[in-house]
Formats: sequence, C-alpha cells, structure tokens
Amino acid sequence: MRDSIETRQPAPWPMNAWYVAATPDEIDGKPLGRRICGERMAIFRDAEGRAAAVEDFCPHRGAPLSLGFVRDGALVCGYHGLAMGCDGRAVGMPGQMVRNFPPIRAFATVERYGFIWVWPGEATRADPAKLHHLPWAGSDRWAYGGGMFRVACDYRLMIDNLMDLTHETYVHASSIGQKEIDEAAVKTRADADEVVTSRYMENVNPPPFWQMALRGSGLPDDVMVDRWQTCRFSLPSHVMIEVGVALAGRGGYDADPAVKASSIVVDFITPETETSHWYFWGMARQFAIHDTALTDEIRAGQQRIFSEDLEMLERQQHNLSDHPDRKLLKLNIDAGGVRSRMMIDRAIAGERDAAQATPSLLR
Amino acid sequence: MRDSIETRQPAPWPMNAWYVAATPDEIDGKPLGRRICGERMAIFRDAEGRAAAVEDFCPHRGAPLSLGFVRDGALVCGYHGLAMGCDGRAVGMPGQMVRNFPPIRAFATVERYGFIWVWPGEATRADPAKLHHLPWAGSDRWAYGGGMFRVACDYRLMIDNLMDLTHETYVHASSIGQKEIDEAAVKTRADADEVVTSRYMENVNPPPFWQMALRGSGLPDDVMVDRWQTCRFSLPSHVMIEVGVALAGRGGYDADPAVKASSIVVDFITPETETSHWYFWGMARQFAIHDTALTDEIRAGQQRIFSEDLEMLERQQHNLSDHPDRKLLKLNIDAGGVRSRMMIDRAIAGERDAAQATPSLLR
Amino acid sequence: MRDSIETRQPAPWPMNAWYVAATPDEIDGKPLGRRICGERMAIFRDAEGRAAAVEDFCPHRGAPLSLGFVRDGALVCGYHGLAMGCDGRAVGMPGQMVRNFPPIRAFATVERYGFIWVWPGEATRADPAKLHHLPWAGSDRWAYGGGMFRVACDYRLMIDNLMDLTHETYVHASSIGQKEIDEAAVKTRADADEVVTSRYMENVNPPPFWQMALRGSGLPDDVMVDRWQTCRFSLPSHVMIEVGVALAGRGGYDADPAVKASSIVVDFITPETETSHWYFWGMARQFAIHDTALTDEIRAGQQRIFSEDLEMLERQQHNLSDHPDRKLLKLNIDAGGVRSRMMIDRAIAGERDAAQATPSLLR
Repeated sequence: MRDSIETRQPAPWPMNAWYVAATPDEIDGKPLGRRICGERMAIFRDAEGRAAAVEDFCPHRGAPLSLGFVRDGALVCGYHGLAMGCDGRAVGMPGQMVRNFPPIRAFATVERYGFIWVWPGEATRADPAKLHHLPWAGSDRWAYGGGMFRVACDYRLMIDNLMDLTHETYVHASSIGQKEIDEAAVKTRADADEVVTSRYMENVNPPPFWQMALRGSGLPDDVMVDRWQTCRFSLPSHVMIEVGVALAGRGGYDADPAVKASSIVVDFITPETETSHWYFWGMARQFAIHDTALTDEIRAGQQRIFSEDLEMLERQQHNLSDHPDRKLLKLNIDAGGVRSRMMIDRAIAGERDAAQATPSLLR
Repeated sequence: MRDSIETRQPAPWPMNAWYVAATPDEIDGKPLGRRICGERMAIFRDAEGRAAAVEDFCPHRGAPLSLGFVRDGALVCGYHGLAMGCDGRAVGMPGQMVRNFPPIRAFATVERYGFIWVWPGEATRADPAKLHHLPWAGSDRWAYGGGMFRVACDYRLMIDNLMDLTHETYVHASSIGQKEIDEAAVKTRADADEVVTSRYMENVNPPPFWQMALRGSGLPDDVMVDRWQTCRFSLPSHVMIEVGVALAGRGGYDADPAVKASSIVVDFITPETETSHWYFWGMARQFAIHDTALTDEIRAGQQRIFSEDLEMLERQQHNLSDHPDRKLLKLNIDAGGVRSRMMIDRAIAGERDAAQATPSLLR
Repeated sequence: MRDSIETRQPAPWPMNAWYVAATPDEIDGKPLGRRICGERMAIFRDAEGRAAAVEDFCPHRGAPLSLGFVRDGALVCGYHGLAMGCDGRAVGMPGQMVRNFPPIRAFATVERYGFIWVWPGEATRADPAKLHHLPWAGSDRWAYGGGMFRVACDYRLMIDNLMDLTHETYVHASSIGQKEIDEAAVKTRADADEVVTSRYMENVNPPPFWQMALRGSGLPDDVMVDRWQTCRFSLPSHVMIEVGVALAGRGGYDADPAVKASSIVVDFITPETETSHWYFWGMARQFAIHDTALTDEIRAGQQRIFSEDLEMLERQQHNLSDHPDRKLLKLNIDAGGVRSRMMIDRAIAGERDAAQATPSLLR
C-alpha cells in the first residue's frame, strides 16, 4: 500500500508502542495472520512457546506465511516449505541453502496479562517495561472475561466513543444507558500519561446491566444507587473504565466493598488500517470472582452492548470519509476524546521528529 | 465525495426540481436515510406530521441522523442526543447550549399524491406549484398500486428504457411483450414541457398481462384488441405511460370505457448517484378500482416485469462504464430517450448559467 | 478500462495466440459472456453450429449481447432485438435498416479437442494450425475428464504453481504430496517452444491419489513405486504434466504399461484480467479408459486437490499487489516458472515490436 518514503503519509497512530494483537488462544497450534497498524503479521509460538510475529510474506514467492504451520518453533510456509525463524531469518527449506535468503521483518512481541502484544515499529526500541500495567491481570482477587470485534472505522472514533459515555443513554438505552448520564457533569483532566474523564450520578435507579451486577454481588437490584464512571485513556490506544454502583448514600466510589458492585471495562483498540481496527473488550471485576457463569453472562452482555456501537461507528466513518474537511463540534462531553487525540498526535509528532533527527545513513 | 467548487463535476441531473424521495410509509414512526441526487438525507416527520428532510450528518460528531429517532418533531441523533429541527437547526441537547451550533442543510420537502417529494437544490427556489400534477392521485375514480427498486445504473438508462418500449418484445416476452410492438411505427414529438413517444397496434392478440387486465375489467381475454402506448417524459425524470387495449375495431384509445382496459404506468426515476437510482414504479387504473386483490395482482405483475429489466440495465451500465467514449446508435426508436436527455441537459445548463450569473459574493 | 493508446499499459499476456475460452457445453443453446485477455466476449454458435465470438457490446445501446439469444445463427440482443452475425456485423433489427450500423469486433474462434478456443488479438493473424496439438483428444485410446475454476490471481502465478510441483508436499499433503518430491532433484530446460521441468522419485510409497490410480489400473496399491512428473509449458499459457507411477524397479517412466498408471494433467490458464484467470484443468489417461465412474472419481479428486491451491494463490496475489516492488527469490525449483515467464515476455515483446513496425496509418 505504502510504496515509498516520498508518497508515504504518516500513519495516524504511534508505531513505537505496544498494542494488543491477539489473545493466546488465537495462536495455539497454528499461526495467525493479522494486520496491525498497517503491517501484515504472522503471529505464532516459537520452540519455547514464546509468542513471535514476523511479516506475513514469504520471501520465496510472497505467499502469506500465516497459511502455513509451525514445526519445531519455525513458521513453515504452506506453499513450498520455506521455514522462517522468529527473528525473520530463513532456517531451512528442502533441498536449499537458505543462509543467504533475505530476511523479513520480525516484530517485537510479548505475551503478558493474557494478551499477545506487538510493537509494530522499530524492534530495537521495544521495551517490555513500557507495557501498560494491568494490576488485575494475573491477580487471584479479580475475574476477567472478554472478546474481540473487528470494526470498520478509524480506531480514534472508538476512543472518542469510550471517552464520552453520554452515548450510553442513546446507543445502549436498554442495558447501561440512563438519562442521568446526560445530566451529570463530566470532568476531564489530562495528566502526563493519561487522560481522565469522569462522571458521578447520585441516587439513581440502576439500569439493567447494573441490576445484574448487583445480583451477582449478592445485593438487592431494586434499590437506588450512586453510580460512577471514570474513563482513563493511555497511549497508544487503551481505555480503562472504572465503573460501578453502590447502594445510595453509602459512600459511592469509596463505599465499603460489601455494598457496591464495581469493575473495570477494559478496551484495547488496535489499528488495523486507517479505517478499521481490532477492538479487544472485556471486564475485570472483584466481586463473585469464582462465578464463571457470571463471567459468561457479563461477557454476553458486553458483547451485546458493544455490538450496538458498531453500526453507529461504521456509518459515522462513512459520513466522515465522505466529508473529510468538515469540522465537527468539540463540546465539553467530547473533551476526553479531544485530549486523547492530542496525546496521540504528540506521540506521532515525537516519532517523526526522532526519525528526522536520525542521520539518514542510519535510517 | 464532491469536495470543493473547483473539483466538482456538474451533476448529470437538475438539482432545482422535485424528485420522489420516498413513500409515506417509509417515514412512519422513524427517520429514513436515503441519498437523493448525491445528497445524503434524513427524512422524517415534524411535530405536525409534515415531511422534512435534512442532511444525514449530525453536526456534533458526524453520525448519520437517520440512525436516531424522532421526538416531539425533532430528529434526535442516536449517538449523543443532539436534536435537530426540520430547518436544520439544533433545538436541544442534554447539558448543552445549542443556540450557536452550526446548522445543517434542510431540503424543501412536500408530501403530496401519496409520495414524499424533495428538492435537492436551493430550498428558497422550491415551489410546490412546480410539482408534477398527478390527476389520478387522490381521485376516487382511480386505483393505484406500486413499489420501488434500487437500480445500479445511471437514471437516464431507465428513462431510455421507458421511452422506448420495443424492449418489451425481448425483455418481457412472457408478459407484455409481443412482436407487433417492434412492427408498429413509433412517433416522437417534443413539446415545451414534455417528450411524447407513442405506438398504436391494431388487431393484435393481447399478451398475458393485458389478458389479466381484460379479465379484471370484466371483458373476454381471448379476443383481438387494439393496443396503445403513449410515453410522456417530463422534468426532472418522470415517465408516465398511458397504456391500454380495447376490443379490436371499437375505437382503440378513444373507445367506450366499457370495451377497453387502460391505465397509466407511473415511473419516478430518482438519481441516487451517477450510477444508481431509486425507481418508483406503479400503475394507476380506472377499471375495477375497488378490487384490492386486483391491485395486488397488478403490483406483483409489475414487480415481476420490472425486475426483468434490472439485470439488463445494470449490465448495460457496466459496459458503458468500461467504454465511456464509445458512441451509441440513435435510431428512430431511441428518439424518446434522446429528446428526454436533451431536455435534461438544457435544464442542467440553465442551472449552471443561473449560478454563474449570480454574483459570487452571494454564492 | 483501457481508454486510449497513450495510457494503455501493455497487457501481461500475448494477444495473438489461441486460448481456451470455454467448453462446448457452455455455449449449447445460449450465448456465453466471458472476459478473455481483458476482452469481454459473447461466445455462441452460428447457423452451422460453429463457435463464434464477438464483443459483448451491442452497438445499439451498449447492452451485453450475451444476455440475449441465438436465432438462425445470429446473436440477438436481448434488449431491443438487434441481431449480430458472427463476423460482428448487424444482420437485422425489426423496423431498421442495419446495413450501415457500425460493426463490433469479431474474434477468431475454433472448436477443437473438446474446447472452444479464441484468439483475442488480430483475427487476420489467427491460424488454426497454430493451435496447441493435443494428441490424446479425440483418440479412442484415451479418456478425459476435467473442470474449470475462476481464480482471482495473475495467470502467471498459476503457471509458477504448476511448473514447480514441490508445493504438492505442502498444499496437497493428503492426496498427491509426499516428502520425496522435495528431495528429488528437479531438472529444467527451455527448448524453442516449450519449457520442461521434471522430477523422478524412485522406490517411494504412492500417495493416496496414486493409490486410487493404481487400483483403477488393476494394480496393487500397497507397493513401492517409481514416480515421475514432467511439466511442459508452452505459449501462451498451457501446462501439460506427464505424471505417473510404476511398480518400483520395473523401468519407471519407460515401464511396461501393464505395471504403471500414468496420465497427463491438462492445464489451460486463460487470463481474464491482470489479476484473475480462468483455469481449465483436467486429466487425460490411457488406463481403464471405459470406466466412466473412474473418470468421475478422478475429476472429483482433481477438483478437491486444485481447490486447495486457490486460497494460497489468491492470498499470494493480495500480498504481491500490496508490495508491487518487492523482489522474490528465484530458486532452482522456480526455474520452470521463471523460464516460462521469459518465454511469455519474449512473445509480448515480439508483438510490441511488430506493432511498432507497422506503419501507423495501417494501425
């Protein structure tokens, strides 16, 4: 797609960052082909079971390596059998000396917190210490369930969506929406490494999803509650949303765990192309953590709720693609998305400046 | 799609004209998104039940307004709840002062004769008196039934199709076609406001569709008839076809109503894009007007007949798109379409001249 | 698509050559629309039952002639009845004098060996003597069965595929693949009119397809065999592959017919567009030639095997379209495809030189 330095438009996402690329089950026993930040990758496990990702392009005849298979930790092309190592170098081919075969790109890859993460930019700059920390992952005091959608819109439209939950009133009227969301004042602040936008609703009726959560926590579901939503954006494109309800007047967000139901809505939003992304969604909760039926019920509920957004987002993308120069409104409720995009733009500009500062011989 | 004055190609249709956009049932209880003459519109009913049409683009975040709902006569965006009036001005949004929100385009809209009509051009020039008059609509001496297709071809190919009924012999051989159509001389004339092309066949066997109509009129269906077809094109893209059969030798078109079956084939051909259109078709008849089963039977017959044209027209479009510079023949049988296109071209040229005559400051 | 001499890219195939366009059953009783080497053709039978091909474009209104029908050996447009002869000249139309109607292109067409062949270039240069000779076709000592796929990739990727059968080990592991193919040395030579690449495997287990063939030949299927593959490419894009197995140590390719099963894999690869082709495949065999159930079984087996290639080839095309400038490896196993492409390139260059040598007034 992008042919040369000259015609290359800067991608609308940071390249030197960790993105969620897959869940571990997707690469169990077979390679996975997935485009991440414009790069077609074949993701697989090496001989030690470590996740690896290389260009999905066999240097022999251009076949997608992801149509092949893994043997002894090498990715074997399903067309003529060229085996590639996780470093992008050829390791063998029947009847051939592969030592001088041209390598393909290898992408830095890490498996952690129940996800496969890739770094689509320069592998030498990839530092696992820069991974977004997920305190709930791997903890035995939390339960997690989630899923994934491919969404045919710019990944930033999903960030906008998640950083302004007033849409719940309209898009999710029958599950988590309620008119009090619109009425509650929203506060947005941008810190050095995150944008936080939050809402607090006092003494409201819990909508159906939270009635289910209250029941799951052993609490009555026909009572008034205080409800909160704190959306946290961090680079490159993660949105963690602390959400919850507490029996009204018992302290809200700070209430005793015994009188509240709370959780973290987990959103990893990984660009595929300029107009599509992989949306990894889920919920981490601290209540009823051994109730796997509840995990399934919540997952099914989230799947239903999040799929309500898809048509809206994809049709919004159509409208914006038709009118690329049209200015949109930036209201107070949009501040979370607007500031998140500013943080993204700064990261992209920083990558561009760093590239220009690098002596061209090294590029 | 069309970004600026400079790069804008003139659209191949008049903009300042009334087009059929929908039938009333399509906007009952919910807004309808439909592209008309290149403009994406959301069509709905205001508080008084009047049809209205605005751009299908929420000025807040660009979502399609047609995915929303109507409340108190305002079109409420289904994403974050911005409510737009039928004049394209924002009327409310929870927690927001909308007075200075940018307006969107509102299109002149009229409901009449059982159709929703829109004027995609300058609303200030829209005059309901310019609506095409349909004497049969609303009359208790006529019955009407019809339907609609989206057809993936230039709307002018449909006009050509309807202004030259020799295709019936080939495309509709089993329903309304008969070889005598080919053999009958065609006469075409262009008046100030319509192009008329007509054919008259004496003493022919009625084809199956007309046998049904004869039976529906209480007449024998196994007799010889005189048959006529008078196609009338008028701007912007309407084709009304007077069709009928009379028992042979009883006066033909002028025969006593008791010995003939006649009707008007109604065709509103509304451009969607350069290569697609909405085809509203129907039949108005003066016989057996209270026989709703016959209305249904005729509608089903028309639907079957008109769908026979679709593949031909869409494949013709493919061929013409592949060969944009290839000249086609213009035979006597094509005169109706040729002259209709001339009338369209004059209307487009007139709009262009008027626009150029307008001082640029006012544009 | 290709508008003018100036912007026309040379097509990546020879135009002045015989290509398989269809099988006879495809034009029995009705015309067939098919794009061959970029040219949309309507293929039909004239009054004497001879195959003919003309542009699939009615000179009247541009409708595809292939949607029409054949009457008295003329191709009648299904829209308004213009009848075209097999020479591309109009022969009649109701109520019209067609003598001066513009002709459309007629393509040289021959029916032979059970196929309809067309010559998409200059008809005056088409010589049936240049048809690829198929000794097995029409012989009563051979049986033939085959089928056809449309494949969404450059026809040369299919030539590469067939001229390097090492892919059998990977793509067709469960039918005709076996690891010894990889291990056997491949020999490639280019003669004046064909490229030949061959492999010989001694004392190997017959894979499932050949077990079936052995049984079909009345031989045991649980024995060791010698196996051979000789792929022969000839212009414009035919690949005939002599394949077989003989009981091990009995002479291999030259063994007595009583102890071997052998056949010719027949591949006619006809370009449709730059990124798609029609793949006519089949098998001609000399054993059990009256066993029509075996013919069906082999056809079903080939259909299953060849469809295993389709995803790989179409995904390879995607990868190459995404990376048009990327160089691929050319290994010894690729020599058959590489040399076949050189032969194609020389043929294209020869056509270009001949065209430039022609005085421009004659073009």
